[in-house]
Amino acid sequence: MTTAGPLADTKVIDLTRVLAGPYCTMMLADMGARVIKVESPDGGDDSRAFGPFVNGKSAYFMSLNRGKESIALDLKDDSDRIVFEKLLSGADVLVENYRPGTIAKLGYRWADLHERYPRLVYAAVSGFGHTGPYAGRPAYDMVVQAMGGLMSLTGHAGAPPTRVGTSIGDTAGMFAAYGILAALLQRGRTGTGTMVDVSMLDGQVAILENAIARYAATGEVPGPIGARHPSITPFDAFAAADGYLVIAAGNDTLFRALCSVLARSGLADDERFADNARRTRNHTVLKEEIETVTRTRSVADWLTALDAAGVPCGPINTVDKVLADPQVAARTMAVAADDPTAGNVIMAGNPVKLDAVDDPPTRRPAPDLDADRNRILAELEQEPAEH
Amino acid sequence: MTTAGPLADTKVIDLTRVLAGPYCTMMLADMGARVIKVESPDGGDDSRAFGPFVNGKSAYFMSLNRGKESIALDLKDDSDRIVFEKLLSGADVLVENYRPGTIAKLGYRWADLHERYPRLVYAAVSGFGHTGPYAGRPAYDMVVQAMGGLMSLTGHAGAPPTRVGTSIGDTAGMFAAYGILAALLQRGRTGTGTMVDVSMLDGQVAILENAIARYAATGEVPGPIGARHPSITPFDAFAAADGYLVIAAGNDTLFRALCSVLARSGLADDERFADNARRTRNHTVLKEEIETVTRTRSVADWLTALDAAGVPCGPINTVDKVLADPQVAARTMAVAADDPTAGNVIMAGNPVKLDAVDDPPTRRPAPDLDADRNRILAELEQEPAEH
Repeated sequence: MTTAGPLADTKVIDLTRVLAGPYCTMMLADMGARVIKVESPDGGDDSRAFGPFVNGKSAYFMSLNRGKESIALDLKDDSDRIVFEKLLSGADVLVENYRPGTIAKLGYRWADLHERYPRLVYAAVSGFGHTGPYAGRPAYDMVVQAMGGLMSLTGHAGAPPTRVGTSIGDTAGMFAAYGILAALLQRGRTGTGTMVDVSMLDGQVAILENAIARYAATGEVPGPIGARHPSITPFDAFAAADGYLVIAAGNDTLFRALCSVLARSGLADDERFADNARRTRNHTVLKEEIETVTRTRSVADWLTALDAAGVPCGPINTVDKVLADPQVAARTMAVAADDPTAGNVIMAGNPVKLDAVDDPPTRRPAPDLDADRNRILAELEQEPAEH
Repeated sequence: MTTAGPLADTKVIDLTRVLAGPYCTMMLADMGARVIKVESPDGGDDSRAFGPFVNGKSAYFMSLNRGKESIALDLKDDSDRIVFEKLLSGADVLVENYRPGTIAKLGYRWADLHERYPRLVYAAVSGFGHTGPYAGRPAYDMVVQAMGGLMSLTGHAGAPPTRVGTSIGDTAGMFAAYGILAALLQRGRTGTGTMVDVSMLDGQVAILENAIARYAATGEVPGPIGARHPSITPFDAFAAADGYLVIAAGNDTLFRALCSVLARSGLADDERFADNARRTRNHTVLKEEIETVTRTRSVADWLTALDAAGVPCGPINTVDKVLADPQVAARTMAVAADDPTAGNVIMAGNPVKLDAVDDPPTRRPAPDLDADRNRILAELEQEPAEH
């Protein structure tokens, strides 16, 4: 085991705010990169003001900025620009999630950056990307969920629209982190940096995958179908006596095992349910048959019985239950930071487990605004002019 | 521009099937890697049998396996194992998404692989990961959506459970692709490969982010809230005369602009809606006020007026509309492959745009089972024994 991580020699200058950008640089920090967050002196990252707060510090901000450093610089101020450019000289990666055009207005167009810092990798995360007719438009997670098709697939038919309950703007941050590592590998081959341009809308389209393939093949526009799988049955949420559980009986063998656990082996012999295609065609009546039985006992009872029979199933965990789950604990998927002001802060862990790299249950906390100024400035004094 | 891509010199041996694993290797292929899919001679990747079909070929399979090569090998057959091991000798990456334990039973435990092929990066994508009490359990997308908390946040309060309408098992594939590039960078530093262990459940926890932070800070368990944002208002789907649109007025200035477009400036002066906190507390009555107006005109009318006023908004696009969107087209987010049997196949494009790398609108099609056998075997004859 090494504690260093694959990005131990990588320095990231981070101009990002709120969600998709900070999520990207958190992924880089989790891989060992040194991430220097350059924030506006006027309050810093907007999300520092997002509630809920713990002793005055934003839980939102703290959860996305663990292990980063902070320096406050006004990129419209000449002396601060000199500091920023010194930082870029020693950096491997610059990440920002301004609206396209903003960074150019500040005087840092990609063409100029590339000429001045040829080894620098530059990643821009935006709502719609740096090209195309919508490039200049603002976007929020909800707008791209709607425009990208995911909302049209989520929810119950006939009910009001349903948003995925978490900001999948994260997805753009993940794709950006992937693009940055690709660009670093590319730099290893070619010696020069490249621009990584990732948009939240593109990220939404990229995760539609099967829906696009199905529509392109059949011409049928897919709609929302609740908790059910479109083409595998039974694969749904089912009501028990005290709540719901999910059951995913993806083939004939598992369906027979399910019927046996339900003590309704007759269902497996019913010709309406003889194979997956017929079960999918008759999904409404099959669900009624299954729920007639599942409603008679508790979620916990059914999970025990189904697990014993090897039928894939699970509880619909709320967040408290997720954090209490023994598998989540065993995988270090909840980590803590000891914040000097807010105390013990709990966050999601790093889902990318590398055999050769430590995955500690505690992390360095998120920085206060400008907390690392003096050390960073002292280091710049000592560094050679170019990287 | 180069057509090569950052992974042009990277050879990937791909044992994956169905979704999360093939999504990962598709991302690698999109970055220029050579991906050799090693499939069971008995039908190959299970998803080759998933409908809908175009001239007998699975749209599902085709959309996830573009640009890959295929060779059929029985890993229980001695002569096929010799071929497989020759492939590993020349490979940079091995990816599989068997249930943990399966690859060891085949004789390819990570410890042995690492000793024999020290430069090989090995990535395993599984339901629950290779460690922890649930490691041996089967999982499907629906099971991890339920167990990982995402279903508990998605849908309308009081309504039956709601699954996100696309398989977010994709997320695990994305994290695995990120981990593989990290491991390749690590190999550049250390000279040796590492194991990348990514689970679908961990991926779900990692994208809960804000929900965990909110719960940890407040002790309140978050539930489903329809299409609304939990802490920003108005940020929701609203009914128009002919359907729904989303409006994301994230601050006081945008709220005032929205009220002006609605010709209801009085709302902006109403003390119940004077700031975001009060708007969020009174979200139900505010939504009624807004919908009283939005129901009087069409979605298209409102989008035009709101765009002109700079209020973030969007249509709830179905998949056909997504594919017809000019921004999606401008960003090459729908790509085509010319399949010799199925004809023109439409798929989601690559959301990671690199300035220095081509992003062509057409891609090589997915391979038929064993299509590249002869060429691959001929190459192995010519290669030196070790990489």
